[in-house]
Amino acid sequence: MTQHLRMPEFAPGTVWLVGAGPGDPGLLTLHAARALEQADVVLHDALVAPEILALCGPGARLEPVGKRAGRPSARQLQINQRLIALARQNLRVVRLKGGDPLVFGRGGEEALALAAAGISFRIVPGVSAGHGALAYAGIPATHRGRAQSIAFVTGHHAGGGDARDVDWAALAKGAQTLVLYMALQRLPAIAQALLGAGRDPDEPVAILSDATTPRQRILRTTLAEVEAVATQVYRSSATLIAIGPVVDLGDVLLPWLETAPATLPSSAHDLLVSQG
Amino acid sequence: MTQHLRMPEFAPGTVWLVGAGPGDPGLLTLHAARALEQADVVLHDALVAPEILALCGPGARLEPVGKRAGRPSARQLQINQRLIALARQNLRVVRLKGGDPLVFGRGGEEALALAAAGISFRIVPGVSAGHGALAYAGIPATHRGRAQSIAFVTGHHAGGGDARDVDWAALAKGAQTLVLYMALQRLPAIAQALLGAGRDPDEPVAILSDATTPRQRILRTTLAEVEAVATQVYRSSATLIAIGPVVDLGDVLLPWLETAPATLPSSAHDLLVSQG
Repeated sequence: MTQHLRMPEFAPGTVWLVGAGPGDPGLLTLHAARALEQADVVLHDALVAPEILALCGPGARLEPVGKRAGRPSARQLQINQRLIALARQNLRVVRLKGGDPLVFGRGGEEALALAAAGISFRIVPGVSAGHGALAYAGIPATHRGRAQSIAFVTGHHAGGGDARDVDWAALAKGAQTLVLYMALQRLPAIAQALLGAGRDPDEPVAILSDATTPRQRILRTTLAEVEAVATQVYRSSATLIAIGPVVDLGDVLLPWLETAPATLPSSAHDLLVSQG
Repeated sequence: MTQHLRMPEFAPGTVWLVGAGPGDPGLLTLHAARALEQADVVLHDALVAPEILALCGPGARLEPVGKRAGRPSARQLQINQRLIALARQNLRVVRLKGGDPLVFGRGGEEALALAAAGISFRIVPGVSAGHGALAYAGIPATHRGRAQSIAFVTGHHAGGGDARDVDWAALAKGAQTLVLYMALQRLPAIAQALLGAGRDPDEPVAILSDATTPRQRILRTTLAEVEAVATQVYRSSATLIAIGPVVDLGDVLLPWLETAPATLPSSAHDLLVSQG
């Protein structure tokens, strides 16, 4: 379908840092799909779906690097060195990451390492997990009268000396929609901080697991009730949390949305659409 | 390349709200490209590039709806009604928007109108303009030690009664990276608000015009100097502004980045990479 597009050459000896999107293979970009098809070697995160890896060409070597949030940063140095070594073998190297490579993906660190080694690279942005998860749950990240600012925040402190904390009180005032990555464990504390800064206890919260995949789950609660509910969440390594007045719109949109979960869980807590 | 992917059916009588991404046709998703190929009618924003519209099937009718930020909301009602009328003619209808349909794209309003009319729809998220623009300028939206939160904010007040202002002082404290949409006119006032809330006068700012297209321009300045520089900007209807410590990383990455502008403008102000 895209034969007449002029696509950039994937030159041997270069590295492409590629976002795989949130999970649904259909959310790969054309650049990403083509990079997988042409790559000699693909270093991929553990979370990237098999359906996406299946798009790699038959000659491509797959190297799972198994990086997950929280691993020691030495692991990142090894990945950087591996990317450089493979590029110096004159290979076409893809570094494939879930979501967008520059949104909590440490793609910037890999890019800096490549630049320092004098290796040309391309960054192929992807649909960030936050955007994809909200869309497939029928939640508009922005909406006139409800949200004219969105903040993407990680609840996880990457190791390696970054002790600066997120100023949740400021975010509570500055962004109507909050999208939290890797924040499930700290969610009760985050909710307390947001409430302390004046956010409404009845403000809706959606906990989105494995979003955009067939295993997608949507759990709906409120800021005041999040502590009781958070322990019941289907625990997935790919959980995103949406907080803000826009979350309510999912109630109206979900019945007409093609990407709504085909089977809704039996627990009332697991329903996005409130039955009341 | 994607023959063996199971893709969802685009059923007649349904509407797909599709993100076209930031401009580069290679940043379309597979779902978006397939939707254009199968659509009977495509209602598209004025900003969507001709190279992207060229991916529509030969039988597709293109309807430019010409919506730009700032038009009266009556225009939006007409678009909603047109989407509903076309779906009721049992057509496959694509509503194509720049970037992501739910990030300052009013896709939520269209989805609500479709739900109210009982019409099934799909939301196909796209690479948001902010993500794409920063990536093609070599600016990581997040970076360990520099940014663990990003805010996407519109500097434009959509008409229709939304008088609530953005709390720039709170955002200044809450988000290390700020990505501003439709904010060029108000940029000097926004910079003053950020400085008043304690952001560093030397903090780097990048003004990104027509990002990810062959016309991409990158203008680099600082919060303190933005007022003097903003008047010199190449004015484009697709301008994004990135503010934060991550912007500096573009200096290091740009020489090795394949998507850097092929021709750098002659004005020193127009160079992202400072020559000092």
